Amino acid sequence: MDYLLRYRELVEEIKAYTYVSNIIGWDSETEAPRNAHGLRGKMMAHISKELFLRSTSKEYIECVETLYKRKSRLDALTKREITLAKKDLDKITKIPQEEFVAYQVLLSDTQLIWEDAKHNNDFASFQPNLAKIIEFQKKFITYYGTDKEAYDVLLDDFEEGMSMKEYDRFFETLKTDLVPFVKDLLAKVKNEPTPFTTENFDVKKQEEFSQYLLDVFAFDRDSGLLKKSVHPFTWNTSPKDVRLTTRYLPDMVFSSIFATIHELGHALYEQQIDDSLTLTGLAGGASMGIHESQSRMYENIFGRSEAFWARHLPKLKKTFPKQLKNVSLEQMVKAANQVEASLIRVEADELTYPLHIMVRYDLERMLFSNQLTVEELPQKWNDLIEAYLGIRPKNDSEGVLQDVHWSAGLFGYFPTYALGSAYAAQIYHTMKQELNVDDLLRKGKIKKINEWVKKKIHRYGKSKTAGELLLLVTKEPFNPQYYVDYLKEKYTKIFLG
Amino acid sequence: MDYLLRYRELVEEIKAYTYVSNIIGWDSETEAPRNAHGLRGKMMAHISKELFLRSTSKEYIECVETLYKRKSRLDALTKREITLAKKDLDKITKIPQEEFVAYQVLLSDTQLIWEDAKHNNDFASFQPNLAKIIEFQKKFITYYGTDKEAYDVLLDDFEEGMSMKEYDRFFETLKTDLVPFVKDLLAKVKNEPTPFTTENFDVKKQEEFSQYLLDVFAFDRDSGLLKKSVHPFTWNTSPKDVRLTTRYLPDMVFSSIFATIHELGHALYEQQIDDSLTLTGLAGGASMGIHESQSRMYENIFGRSEAFWARHLPKLKKTFPKQLKNVSLEQMVKAANQVEASLIRVEADELTYPLHIMVRYDLERMLFSNQLTVEELPQKWNDLIEAYLGIRPKNDSEGVLQDVHWSAGLFGYFPTYALGSAYAAQIYHTMKQELNVDDLLRKGKIKKINEWVKKKIHRYGKSKTAGELLLLVTKEPFNPQYYVDYLKEKYTKIFLG
Repeated sequence: MDYLLRYRELVEEIKAYTYVSNIIGWDSETEAPRNAHGLRGKMMAHISKELFLRSTSKEYIECVETLYKRKSRLDALTKREITLAKKDLDKITKIPQEEFVAYQVLLSDTQLIWEDAKHNNDFASFQPNLAKIIEFQKKFITYYGTDKEAYDVLLDDFEEGMSMKEYDRFFETLKTDLVPFVKDLLAKVKNEPTPFTTENFDVKKQEEFSQYLLDVFAFDRDSGLLKKSVHPFTWNTSPKDVRLTTRYLPDMVFSSIFATIHELGHALYEQQIDDSLTLTGLAGGASMGIHESQSRMYENIFGRSEAFWARHLPKLKKTFPKQLKNVSLEQMVKAANQVEASLIRVEADELTYPLHIMVRYDLERMLFSNQLTVEELPQKWNDLIEAYLGIRPKNDSEGVLQDVHWSAGLFGYFPTYALGSAYAAQIYHTMKQELNVDDLLRKGKIKKINEWVKKKIHRYGKSKTAGELLLLVTKEPFNPQYYVDYLKEKYTKIFLG
Repeated sequence: MDYLLRYRELVEEIKAYTYVSNIIGWDSETEAPRNAHGLRGKMMAHISKELFLRSTSKEYIECVETLYKRKSRLDALTKREITLAKKDLDKITKIPQEEFVAYQVLLSDTQLIWEDAKHNNDFASFQPNLAKIIEFQKKFITYYGTDKEAYDVLLDDFEEGMSMKEYDRFFETLKTDLVPFVKDLLAKVKNEPTPFTTENFDVKKQEEFSQYLLDVFAFDRDSGLLKKSVHPFTWNTSPKDVRLTTRYLPDMVFSSIFATIHELGHALYEQQIDDSLTLTGLAGGASMGIHESQSRMYENIFGRSEAFWARHLPKLKKTFPKQLKNVSLEQMVKAANQVEASLIRVEADELTYPLHIMVRYDLERMLFSNQLTVEELPQKWNDLIEAYLGIRPKNDSEGVLQDVHWSAGLFGYFPTYALGSAYAAQIYHTMKQELNVDDLLRKGKIKKINEWVKKKIHRYGKSKTAGELLLLVTKEPFNPQYYVDYLKEKYTKIFLG
């Protein structure tokens, strides 16, 4: 069956182009000088063109189509891989090459424009590019010839099987069951100022603590590193090269700590995927939602727990003796889980976070059903934030310009963040029955937890869908009730107990 | 004349592959985690293969050959470009593609092996790869079908027009005229310990001072950056993206200072090349020797001068108040120009430096005329160091393993370092007639010097040869006497005056 052999060779060649694109992306986002962007755009246009040509070559298409027809004779892993390849191919082959290349150049250019726009609070300078990105996406979807609504296509892109129908239901559950609880909590709890928000924290010391966290979470430094960037993210080319970034703000020490732990959740996932999948179409995490479930679990469930800080608060106090000398464990846990209406999604607490996602979900839904123009976006953003959170951004830098996603063409991505938190709660419910999680956190044995998620989830890469994984791990399909129950129990205990 | 248009398009496509290779090289040498190398090697094999295919495609060859035949009808710049392209093509087309790719993979693998070998003082682990690299190079040269000796081919690769004949004569001049002077000086001058060698200097503070130097030399930070690496180097993809590295050793503060200034010499050259040459075959410096003339001039002639430190010693003392509080300008200049027999080339002083180069020149010469095996290399290295410098390495890490060059297949490169110093002295001789260099250094007006070298040398890129540039700037051909005169005058003044 030499179609399979040839398919493997072609996939490896194609991967060389995504590999170099990834390295250039990493360089661009973490250190390249400003003026590098002009040549980079030109050079990347050639690489993107070649990537496109190879991903849509006659020979590659023939291999995938032939293997897909014979899929009943393939082993389970290869069958899954070819099914995914066929799905991607059905989309990509329908986009004219020049448009694909032009779109890649547009994205490359837009990165810098967005950075400047955010910095200068100048949405107008970003607006034309954002409009072009959306137009490209809408046009691409028409090429697919699907009868789905445009936004459903995008939602399914980021989370196989999800659509507005499921998300509407999911967010409805949250609105009905969780929002009243949050309102009640916000009314009862008065946030006291703590050193974490009133003191200044040396950026070099914060960096030292983030490096400490890498070791605490048993991150493999021979297969990765930590750097800083404007917006924290995790990047990888294989389980052997997984990099994460965080950001250091002198007046927000929690920002770097929890961004680091969040990205560690993503990074450990990537490091623990079976390396035999690296050169196949099953490399990488199962889905955006499952990926986010890991980062949310590490950040919120482990990283903001009393058990975790019982062990690590002494080190944090040692790093910032002047600022934190009088802080108790109880104060630390309360501060790390403080609930309040706020403007910046990545700084939002675990409880109000889904409201930030709902704003983006509503806006994307409207943009892609032509109920909203890009020009109207900043105003509508501010209106929705005010409606859900009761506060209003003073400018676009802390409003519509805050996230990198749209400048990178990522529409349909945000909802997976909220979904991830819900998956995490369901997975954690099972984990607690098999591991004494609090005890492991208290004793610094996070490796045991890593091994559990490796065995249950990480190692599979994309070889199982989100739905299959949930069923395998928790013995039931996705059930958002675990999320609501987890949140209620946790926040009742901390603030109302 | 649409061959030219098509040629331009093809060159831009080819450049996309060297561009991505460069970025991956930068990543690999400055930050990629250890375990990244396996996948990187595989991915780079595909990129190198594609680069080779495109650099030797029928269409590209046809364009170059046709334009070369019509070269009398081309403008001077294009004529020079096509002549260089034809010369490269004559070589590359004679190497079988599989061997070219295998060689690139070998180089990629060897990088890490050399790093480990140096770290573990284990030449044996590096020896097989080094032998393979040399075998590849010898085989490649036989493919060229030249009647030149192998080492002459390599020497010409790094410095157009140079061969063993010229280098023998150059080094002979130094041996006859300079070596007696050096011996005399070493006998008369006793090096006193200074704080620069006895004190420890915080690495973060050294980094701060190197960043200060970037501003002193008017390095454009929007078009470049400074990082650290095992071996300092300068890297660029265009005048808009020029990066330099240095290294920080707590017990050798001069190491970072002068490596930074040295690399700044290279980096300013690249930043000042006319950007219109970027996507042509005339991008980059004129030759290795001319490039090195700039780094040596900035490092040794400007960076170690009394005039320079008259301005910047106060800042250095402010950075290290405890260590340097009692240092005078005279002590600083003496320390920065201290002459002694030493083992590590990159730490060697300006006077003994050419002796380090002669060791490598002799060894390369023997390796490529089969008078020496790779196995015998460490012993012979130590013998020659002892013969020229009177001291002997205690291990291979401070001997044959110290330099990155051979692990990267760079044979014939070292001699250009000594040549560069000689070019620098000749260029400086002219510069002094047109600029009050000392006064500019004393007043912190290095921008004026940058402008002079930009106008006279930098902006031309590869559009003029080393010989043409020397003639244009100094009104005479290469004359090593300026080098000897410069050194004698400088060192007499500092140490024997």
